[in-house]
Amino acid sequence: MSESSCTVYELKCPECKKGFGNVPLSACPDCLAPLEVQYDLDSVRGRFTKESVAAGPANIWRYKELLPIPEGHQPDLPVGFTPLVKADRLGKRIGATNLYVKNDAVCFPTLSFKDRVVAVALANAQHFGFDVVGCSSTGNLANSVAAQSTRLGLRACILVPSDLEPAKILNTQVYGAKLVRIEGNYDHVNRLCTLIADEYKWGFVNVNLRPYYAEGSKTVGYEIAEQLGWRLPDNIVCPMAGGSLIRKIKKAFAELVALGIVEDKPVKFFGAQATGCSPISHSVKNGWDDIEPQRPNTIARSLAIGNPADGPAASKMIQSTGGYAEDVSDVEIVSGIQELAETEGIFTETAGGVTTAVTAKLYADGRIGKDELTVSVITGNGLKTTDPLVGKFAEERAVKPRLAEFDAFLRESDASLITGVAEEEVELVGGTK
Amino acid sequence: MSESSCTVYELKCPECKKGFGNVPLSACPDCLAPLEVQYDLDSVRGRFTKESVAAGPANIWRYKELLPIPEGHQPDLPVGFTPLVKADRLGKRIGATNLYVKNDAVCFPTLSFKDRVVAVALANAQHFGFDVVGCSSTGNLANSVAAQSTRLGLRACILVPSDLEPAKILNTQVYGAKLVRIEGNYDHVNRLCTLIADEYKWGFVNVNLRPYYAEGSKTVGYEIAEQLGWRLPDNIVCPMAGGSLIRKIKKAFAELVALGIVEDKPVKFFGAQATGCSPISHSVKNGWDDIEPQRPNTIARSLAIGNPADGPAASKMIQSTGGYAEDVSDVEIVSGIQELAETEGIFTETAGGVTTAVTAKLYADGRIGKDELTVSVITGNGLKTTDPLVGKFAEERAVKPRLAEFDAFLRESDASLITGVAEEEVELVGGTK
Repeated sequence: MSESSCTVYELKCPECKKGFGNVPLSACPDCLAPLEVQYDLDSVRGRFTKESVAAGPANIWRYKELLPIPEGHQPDLPVGFTPLVKADRLGKRIGATNLYVKNDAVCFPTLSFKDRVVAVALANAQHFGFDVVGCSSTGNLANSVAAQSTRLGLRACILVPSDLEPAKILNTQVYGAKLVRIEGNYDHVNRLCTLIADEYKWGFVNVNLRPYYAEGSKTVGYEIAEQLGWRLPDNIVCPMAGGSLIRKIKKAFAELVALGIVEDKPVKFFGAQATGCSPISHSVKNGWDDIEPQRPNTIARSLAIGNPADGPAASKMIQSTGGYAEDVSDVEIVSGIQELAETEGIFTETAGGVTTAVTAKLYADGRIGKDELTVSVITGNGLKTTDPLVGKFAEERAVKPRLAEFDAFLRESDASLITGVAEEEVELVGGTK
Repeated sequence: MSESSCTVYELKCPECKKGFGNVPLSACPDCLAPLEVQYDLDSVRGRFTKESVAAGPANIWRYKELLPIPEGHQPDLPVGFTPLVKADRLGKRIGATNLYVKNDAVCFPTLSFKDRVVAVALANAQHFGFDVVGCSSTGNLANSVAAQSTRLGLRACILVPSDLEPAKILNTQVYGAKLVRIEGNYDHVNRLCTLIADEYKWGFVNVNLRPYYAEGSKTVGYEIAEQLGWRLPDNIVCPMAGGSLIRKIKKAFAELVALGIVEDKPVKFFGAQATGCSPISHSVKNGWDDIEPQRPNTIARSLAIGNPADGPAASKMIQSTGGYAEDVSDVEIVSGIQELAETEGIFTETAGGVTTAVTAKLYADGRIGKDELTVSVITGNGLKTTDPLVGKFAEERAVKPRLAEFDAFLRESDASLITGVAEEEVELVGGTK
């Protein structure tokens, strides 16, 4: 560990305020509180400006001054900087006039926001000298650790619940990572990983590297602010699994305000969960400052964390901003996926269906005003969770390659597409030549 | 059609040199040659500079001065500008020291290079006033037309071979596009679309809008040159279906040379096909200036065009540069997918497996020198064609969430991952609390 890097950031216990320098450690040995990375913002001030960011590369490394990246680390991959798109067509459908979608369904390299946290975690894994890295995962994290670690020449061992979606399993194994399926849900897997991290000399991105890892999520917040022209939105709607992402977006906004880069203003944070795994939204709705763990049962497996580590903190934070949390059924999740695809051309996974359906509900219930500037955070790609959509679309008969046949088919199937009337009917010659 | 746009570019017949202004037309009525967009490079010269490009957005619209975009068109989506990554680990495996991968597997919005051509085509479809757009497709184009058209409020009717991969069908229907499955292969579908475009008033991106559409592929070439620091590589390895992309990369390089933005140098072009559909590589290997159509039979369905429109031109172009074309078996394609994933963390579809396997073969055969600067063009995402990989990875038993069980499993399964010895074995409490 280089001394100089400690002058800019280090791990701190949020309870007893003790500092730990930079080490692979997840919690304060005294308070057991999860450690957080704290920056010396004064030393960053001169080096993180709108101009310095604009001059940086079009990826998360443009924000490196506010990321815990060891001195001298050369970022390898152009991760992140995903589109923020104005969602007028979705807005029209759900009664919103100023709605944006942050689209991490196309995040580089593995199509989810987890690429951001993994990039930061692995930079530290290399710095601390780990040869093997690992994670517990509901899928997206597995994909990202597998892909990024192989590119860096690190070996990976990844633990997942045994019932994970086939595409997420394949999209881990294809990179050559060791995948271990654990009998149980994510919470079982995660507790096992805590023991493994203690036992072997492995760098677990979301265990002993977690404080660094979690900071990567801030880049979603930086990008939103920058892409809005360096201003904050009125509302953020964000999916919640462990409860970390929504908190880190808030932290990103707070840092930008502290540095004088954006104007301070109230931002309400809204959390989105599946009803089948809704410990945080349940807590928010009841005004609690703790959560009651649940046994997950939902198609949104990437959000299926029944005992979320940052759940209590997320619940309190949401309430403190005047926001809210909502949850939606599996049927609503599938409708949310379709709604976002049909209106904005964005195909998201089940977690994004949750966020979209919750966003719609928040507008419908008047919890978000129709003209408020709202950003809905889409975190993963629909190609990873296709199962819930299978059978949603009628399989129509195949049509012979002749104009007359096509015309007849279209008239019976969707005549509204025909704007002119077919007069001539020409036969096609078969064969491939 | 605005007059002013015609002053910068217009359709021209490459045979008789007749100009057509800007109209939805694919071929010269006299020569039947496919029309091409020609620019008044002199009028572009002052407006397309390294500086103007650098000041543009991080997407294909930074090159808009060399794209056929109607005057006043406001680009909607941040398409393209995908990573060019140095592929040292893949290079080491295949004996290359200066190899790059252009990664359109993460192209926005639908994860293939087709997003580029569709963005340009739909800008023109809107300009010409089409309400319905369509295409014939082997999958990626279908996905992109469906996603981008719905975002623009256009209706889409998309024709595909009836045996297309399920993920590509789902990833078209989810956007609400009309999908029509045609009995036959791509060549049947494509010929039918030519008739449909004449019959209905639809804008077919790869029929009557094809000259504009095809220009979008040039952005792959611009990006490669810019990402290399405004210089040209020694070699391009590019997959070939219709044969258009490889030609347009060459056109992009030629324009950059003509504008004085990059230094002129010989660039060899290498085409990649699946042996099961290799009309262009067959032509190159035989030194022909024409192609012999084939009946496709390969898992690389996105390349399965047996009678490629630009095949003869591509074959001649490749030969004229001193390049070559190769083709690989289905088994080699799957190995290529795995090789790229295991080394660079990039999961590509079957077409990318073709390109990677052909790249390896070209180095092995000495057709590409080991130190030459080579760019291998990856055009689509692996999540779209998972079938060929199913069964490639042994499904190991699920492990109980206890450290002792995990340790035993790892010792029997991959003991090399254990760097320290597990001494204590702690039992986990089951249940989710």
